[in-house]
Order: sequence, then C-alpha cells, then structure tokens
Amino acid sequence: MSWLPVPPDHYFSINNIPFGIISTPSNTTPRPAVAIGEHVLDLHAFADSANGFSQLPDFAQSEVFVSERTLNRFASLGRPIHRLVREYLQEVLSIDTPYPGLLRDNPEAQKACLLNSVEDDVRMHLPMDIGDYSDFYAGKNHAFNVGVLFRGRENALQPNYEHLPVGYHGRASSVVVSGTRVPRPRGQVIKSGDGEKVPAFVESGKLDFELEIAAFVGRGSDLGSCVGVDEAGEYLFGMVIMNDWSARDIQAWEYVPLGPFTSKSFATSISPWVVLMDALEPLRTRPLERGTKVPLLPYLQESNSESVYDIPLTTFLANQKKKHIAHSGTHKISQTSSSNLLFSFSQMLAHHTITGCPLQTGDLVGSGTISGIDTQSMGSLLEMTQNGTRKVLLGDSGESRGFLEDGDVVVLAGGCGKAGVGFGECVGEILPAGK
Amino acid sequence: MSWLPVPPDHYFSINNIPFGIISTPSNTTPRPAVAIGEHVLDLHAFADSANGFSQLPDFAQSEVFVSERTLNRFASLGRPIHRLVREYLQEVLSIDTPYPGLLRDNPEAQKACLLNSVEDDVRMHLPMDIGDYSDFYAGKNHAFNVGVLFRGRENALQPNYEHLPVGYHGRASSVVVSGTRVPRPRGQVIKSGDGEKVPAFVESGKLDFELEIAAFVGRGSDLGSCVGVDEAGEYLFGMVIMNDWSARDIQAWEYVPLGPFTSKSFATSISPWVVLMDALEPLRTRPLERGTKVPLLPYLQESNSESVYDIPLTTFLANQKKKHIAHSGTHKISQTSSSNLLFSFSQMLAHHTITGCPLQTGDLVGSGTISGIDTQSMGSLLEMTQNGTRKVLLGDSGESRGFLEDGDVVVLAGGCGKAGVGFGECVGEILPAGK
Repeated sequence: MSWLPVPPDHYFSINNIPFGIISTPSNTTPRPAVAIGEHVLDLHAFADSANGFSQLPDFAQSEVFVSERTLNRFASLGRPIHRLVREYLQEVLSIDTPYPGLLRDNPEAQKACLLNSVEDDVRMHLPMDIGDYSDFYAGKNHAFNVGVLFRGRENALQPNYEHLPVGYHGRASSVVVSGTRVPRPRGQVIKSGDGEKVPAFVESGKLDFELEIAAFVGRGSDLGSCVGVDEAGEYLFGMVIMNDWSARDIQAWEYVPLGPFTSKSFATSISPWVVLMDALEPLRTRPLERGTKVPLLPYLQESNSESVYDIPLTTFLANQKKKHIAHSGTHKISQTSSSNLLFSFSQMLAHHTITGCPLQTGDLVGSGTISGIDTQSMGSLLEMTQNGTRKVLLGDSGESRGFLEDGDVVVLAGGCGKAGVGFGECVGEILPAGK
Repeated sequence: MSWLPVPPDHYFSINNIPFGIISTPSNTTPRPAVAIGEHVLDLHAFADSANGFSQLPDFAQSEVFVSERTLNRFASLGRPIHRLVREYLQEVLSIDTPYPGLLRDNPEAQKACLLNSVEDDVRMHLPMDIGDYSDFYAGKNHAFNVGVLFRGRENALQPNYEHLPVGYHGRASSVVVSGTRVPRPRGQVIKSGDGEKVPAFVESGKLDFELEIAAFVGRGSDLGSCVGVDEAGEYLFGMVIMNDWSARDIQAWEYVPLGPFTSKSFATSISPWVVLMDALEPLRTRPLERGTKVPLLPYLQESNSESVYDIPLTTFLANQKKKHIAHSGTHKISQTSSSNLLFSFSQMLAHHTITGCPLQTGDLVGSGTISGIDTQSMGSLLEMTQNGTRKVLLGDSGESRGFLEDGDVVVLAGGCGKAGVGFGECVGEILPAGK
C-alpha cells in the first residue's frame, strides 16, 4: 500500500512503478519520472532539489535522472541497478516508508516532485532513444489465423515457424508515443489480379492495428557475441504495449520477397510508461505449446518453463468524430492475454544475437501480434473480419468496421487488476490522408 | 590540381574531397577530416587551432568539426552548406589557392592539420551515427540472376519489381567500418529437404559478400510527410561503398515470410570516406531500362533521366593466411559499374517516405547488390558460382571458391580514375566462427 491514493485495480500500483519521460506546461524540459496511480514522481526534481536518493548510497549515478531526456542511461546501468532503484522508490512511496521525512511527511518535497497526471497536464514523451526496432512474429494464433486466410489451414504455419522466432527489422524512426495521431498512408495497391498486375496509387483502404507487447534492451552486447537464452533477461530493461499499425493492401503488394516495408513504417505507437522486468515477475506463465515433436535447438531451450507473462490485453475502438477518447463510449472489440506467444523475449534475444548481431541500449523488440483463438480475442482487424469480409459490429452503435476509418481511435490497454501491474494505455487516432 | 601530391587516377583527387572520422595514436579522439590523395586534413585542428574557416564567413557553424565525433551535425546542415564547405576546401587545397597563407604557405598550420594516412597511422571510424539502415534491391541484374537460380528464368523478377524499389529494413547496430573483422556466423540451416524440415545448428557454409553502394541522409523529414522524387537529392549527404555480408544457407531457411534477419545482421561493412553528392554530379548516367511498358506511378517519375552514377566497382579476394591485404597478390574476381540500378537513390527516398516514414540525419540507404550481366561482373558469389555449384578460380593460385572461407579478405573498391572521384576501399576479413 502507498500513502498516495491508488484507484482499485489500477495498473500503476506500488507493485509496478513504471518509468517514463514527462514534461509539463510549467517545465517543458523532458525528464524521467515514475507513475503511481494517477500521480507522477518527477525523478529529476526528486534526485536534484529534494536530494531524494540520499538514502540509497549504493546508487551513485542518480545524475541519470537529472541530465538526461531519455531513460537510456538509466537502462544501460543493468538490471541489478534497476532493481535497486525500483525497490527504493517502492519504499519511499510505501505507507510505512522507512524514510517518512523524505517525501511522505515533507510537503515542500512533495510540492517540488509530485504531480497529478491530469491536473498538472503531464505530457508523455518517447521513453527511450531507440537505436534499432525489431519485430517478431511469436503470436502463434495470429500467425495461424493469417496463414489460414492466405494459404489455407493445411499450410497455415510456414515450415520454419516452430523452430525459430521469426522476426524482421522494423523502422525505428517511426516509433511514436501513445497519443500521436497517425495520418492514413497512401501507397501502391493492386486493385485487380487479372493479367499483369498494375498498381494504383491510393489511400490505404485496409488500415489495421496490431496488438503487441514490446521490450526495451537495457544492457548491450558486442558484435560477434551471442546472448544465452537463460541470461537474456539480464539484457532487458522493461516492457510496453504497442500498436504496429499496418496497411494491409500496401503490404500485400510490396512484401515479396523482402518483407513488409512502407506498409508498416508510417507509424508504430507505444505506451509511454516502461514496466520494469522485475515488476512482471509475478505474472510469469507458460507459453503456447509447439505442435512439432522435434525439440528446439539447444540455444533456444530455456530453463524457466514459465517464460511469458499473463497480462490481460484489451482493444477498444471509438470514433473521434462522434465521441471523445474515453473508455466509456468506446467499444471493446477484443480481449486476450500477453501469454499467447510461442516464444519468450529471452528466446527472441537469443535468436536475434545467434549470428552475432549486437544489441544496444534502447533497442526495441516487439512480440508480433497477439491473438487468442476466437474472434473476440484477436489482435488485428485482418483476423477479426477475415480480411474485411465479415465486419465487426461496434456494440449497439449501428457502426461496424472491416478496417479502420478516418477518425477512429484505437485504445490498447494492458492491465492486471489482481497484481496491480500493467502497461496502461496506447492510444492512436487515424487522421485523413495528408493531414 | 592541388599543391599536395595526389597519385595519378587516385579516387581522392581535389575533385572529390570526401569526409570521414579519424583518430591517430597521438590524438585518439575521433574527429572529422577530409582526404586528398594519401593525405588527410584534420578538420578539428583546421577549424580550431588554425582558424581555417576564417575566410568563409558564411559558414558560422564550424564548431560542427570541433565538438563532434561523427559527421551527423555537419550532414544535418543541408546540401547548400555541404557545397559551400567542400568548394571552400577545394580552394584551400588548390595549387592557386586564393588563401595561400592559410595552409599552402603556412608550415605551422600544415603541421597542426595535415596528416599522412600511412605515416601517421590514421585510423578510420564509422563516419556517422546511423539511426536506421534500409537496404533496397535496385540492382536489376542481381535480382534477375538470383531469381533465375531459385525460380527459373520465366519468373525471375517478382511482379512488383519494376513498379517500386523493393526494399527492407536492415540492422543499423551491425554496420561497421571497413577493416572490422567479421566472425563467421552460426545459425539454423536445413541440411536436407525430405519430409518435415528439421534445422541443424551449424557454422554458415554459404558465407557471401554483397557489393553495394549506399547513401547517408543529411536533412531529415517529418512523420507523415513524403519526400518528392525531384527534391530527394537535397535530403542526401553523401555516399559510400558497402559490403552487406550474407549467410545464404541461414537466409534460405529464415526469410519466409518476413525477409532476411539474422542472416545479414551479423555485419555490414562500409568504406570510411563519405563522398558528397556534389562530387558525384559529373558521373551521372542513365539507369537500367525497365522491361514493362506500364509507366511508373507519378511519385517515382524523376525529371533528370541521368539519375544514377557510373563509378567502376571492383571486387578483390585474398586469403589472409597466405598474403597480406594488398591489391598486388589479391585476385580480382569482379568488375562492374554502380550504374547497374533500375532505380535511383532519389526514387528510393521518394518510395521510402511515400507512406510517411520519417528520415533522420545519419540514416543509411543501400542500393542492393550491384551486378552486371556476365559472370565477371557479378556482385556476389551466389551469382558467380550459381549457388556454390561452379567454383570461381582465383587467378592461377590453384585456389577456387564456392563461398567464402576463413581468412578470406574481400576488398570492394570504387574508383573513377578519369574524374578523380571514388569511394576508395571497403575491406573485411572472415574470422573463424566464435573468434
């Protein structure tokens, strides 16, 4: 329990303490912070003017909260330091804090460091300077659903799918923070399949969201070195929920033979608060089962069988033209769990580095789209609507969707009421093309 | 003509003036420089201790050479500034310089700023901090050769190939400077094709080079904005020659359906000196012809029909166990031209941004492998040896190659004797796996 009020079942309970980068109208310099309930602790002010890390002498690098506009330097310090700092902040914020004079009983320090996310108009920024962004395809149900659509049930999964975490390099420069509005992309699309295929230049008519979770790399690795699967967790900093927006019609034409390119590089939205790996530990569970009896190659065999996390993931859709962004009034279109993965993030890192690819602090690694089995648990409209052919009803609004329309607001929410740990929300609104 | 000696037909004549990042044993801080012949002008010392930009009052930002360890800030200033600075340095280094007291007749300034690349043991560093690295597939002959190998002559080029510059996102963290040694990667490979495909974990047996050229982005663009094809040149800073090392056996198993991943992300080598776009202007020529009568979509129609550059590209192979890195003693295995492209870099940028992907200063954009028509002009062993089945003889050494062996040194050289403009060399040696 914290001495600060936290609404029941809030994902930012004292069990979480996620890190982000904030600014406010009264101090527009981006700076590190942690969230607790609807409150925000400004770590720049806490470390600097309140001398808040005075009771943590083992953490001599608190300037990482003072001089930096991203979390990269903090993340680069490694998992033992992340653990030390998070546990210390839990103590500071705990109702029976051993340091009551630091903040709980210190109105002056509270005034300097504590913000209310709504009342103080806290603006969130990208939490990390992202060097490389890689996206995997580890959501087996999703890969299967998409495979059935395009290749039929017998050949739904490619031969390599269960033997390695399939992934590709994404575009780092188009990763944006939740709340950034996304113009509808234009590009090359094939309108008919007769004779020589001739593309037209059009606005995407198959704009989709993709529900994913993603991890930030903390500690880097060297060119030529491989990260072992059982030590990979030490290389991770924390996680977010992610929307890897996709233009399905542009993708279908461009992706042979080198993979998706402009159909995804127009925007990828992430939630602003990074949930540290330690906060996710209580949510560990088993991944999906492999369908083949051929064992994984040793470099992918993980000792901990509970290698993924069970966090409820919910997708809401609203239309900005009609209703303001809010859960009330929006329509829940999907409910699933982040455990619907065939491979863990440790396996993804082990595979990513197996040929010697270096990791760098701030690299972002996505899970791939996460879907359950039935229509109500799918992580993309492509799957829910069978490539647009079976529209999804938006409650009793009279509205339905094949793909996203202009003004649509997609809200991905990742929360775990029981544990008080979750990602919060990742929000994006579709603007008309060219806006 | 320069007052400094430049060997005949050298690619770093006064017509070139490429920019790079150097250090020396006596000053290990990486700093900007330009090359002329075998000499190097230290721009940090020139700007700072020699006040070398005093005669260029319009260039008020010369601190970009003093405070920076990469060329990013200089590149971000835009093409008019690159032009101004390059032309000024050409004047300073010209035999009839209007500023003789600045350097030509000033032994003290020469001592402070001028280095000999060999005698002063100049070490080259990565010239730019690379945000995103994208690689295209615009070498039509290469795409055709590879297509014939895997799909036959009739279906060699995919239906989209002539309608858009096919490309994919590469891995920025594994881009290394020429001279960096490359350990042979290990990974998943299919050994036979019978029944269920079962991968083995092995050292790559099909390690290959890929001859490419690549451009660095100078000026960035915003999320949601498209770079017009006729203005795209203003977004480019300069070019290098590049070796996009590839493990063909790992690639063949992993690349369906999302493209190459670990089979390329173990290393990509680039030449250290960035040749500015203006220096390449005299080498403009026409690209390869399209085979279809369907016109390009308007966003890819370029006004200047001479949209690519005719620079001779040569590939040499030596073995480090037997002979030292040097042209004498190495074997020339390929000779082609950088004009063997179907799309220009302006078309690549226009397509890259068509859905709104932002460009950032320091982004690297590769051409794809460049090959001519015949075996002696191909840009990869995959093509030259028909996937390893027809070995290439290394002169009269008694050695032959299907793919690269440990200790092999690949030297890509891009030079144009006539114009005195080229990229110089990109060198890489294959180390045994795990070294």
